[in-house]
Amino acid sequence: MPDRNQPPRPGTSVAGGGRAALDTALAYYRAWTSHDFDKAMTYVAEDIICQAPAGRLEGAAAFRGFMGPFVQIVTSSSLIAAFGDDEKAVVMYDTGTVPVKDAPGAECVTVRDGKITHMRIIFDRVPFDEARRAAATG
Amino acid sequence: MPDRNQPPRPGTSVAGGGRAALDTALAYYRAWTSHDFDKAMTYVAEDIICQAPAGRLEGAAAFRGFMGPFVQIVTSSSLIAAFGDDEKAVVMYDTGTVPVKDAPGAECVTVRDGKITHMRIIFDRVPFDEARRAAATG
Repeated sequence: MPDRNQPPRPGTSVAGGGRAALDTALAYYRAWTSHDFDKAMTYVAEDIICQAPAGRLEGAAAFRGFMGPFVQIVTSSSLIAAFGDDEKAVVMYDTGTVPVKDAPGAECVTVRDGKITHMRIIFDRVPFDEARRAAATG
Repeated sequence: MPDRNQPPRPGTSVAGGGRAALDTALAYYRAWTSHDFDKAMTYVAEDIICQAPAGRLEGAAAFRGFMGPFVQIVTSSSLIAAFGDDEKAVVMYDTGTVPVKDAPGAECVTVRDGKITHMRIIFDRVPFDEARRAAATG
């Protein structure tokens, strides 16, 4: 049953067995989209494995190096969908960023003891590459 | 409550209110990953709006022109996660393709009367662009 103490969230599903992973995924999302990346990192396990478009990242320091610079260029965000259960959650969102105005992303996270231990993150690198090239050629 | 007549599926959540959209999203996924794209299209509304990395596609014909050629180059697929309720579902998957061996994607679909009326699809175009350039330069 849905938790009546929680406000309704767009596209959020409540599984019969619980929603602990979804809660962690949403807490992480809310923290980084409000530019509190240090708080966001409190939801990330020290030994996180992140499969990102550019490759595999191992550990919280590598993850911070990947996600931190992105958070700094985010200017807006909106949640497209968030679903999950006690172990796994998927969050899809749209972001506006300084170089790219429409940069959606999707994350599938595995959560253990309130920390994200695995993340598969999908986004299109093409508009970021194009913006970089445009900036370089003036 | 979970539907006991359904086999368990990896990463699949059952919402209190139903899972009609999830069922349609999974039927669509199973059809195209088994190379039955005509069957896949039976789950797609004539007036589908698809927001893809390259832009907005309107209508089933445009959607077929986008997704059909991709389906032809898919050599393998595996479901990473699938969650949803009666109206909306998110499916994340990995595919192997002829030009790119690791090409994950994520879709958020809105379903009405068993047909996908809206799809937001996210994937990284960079490895496909690189494969195309490598093929062109021989």
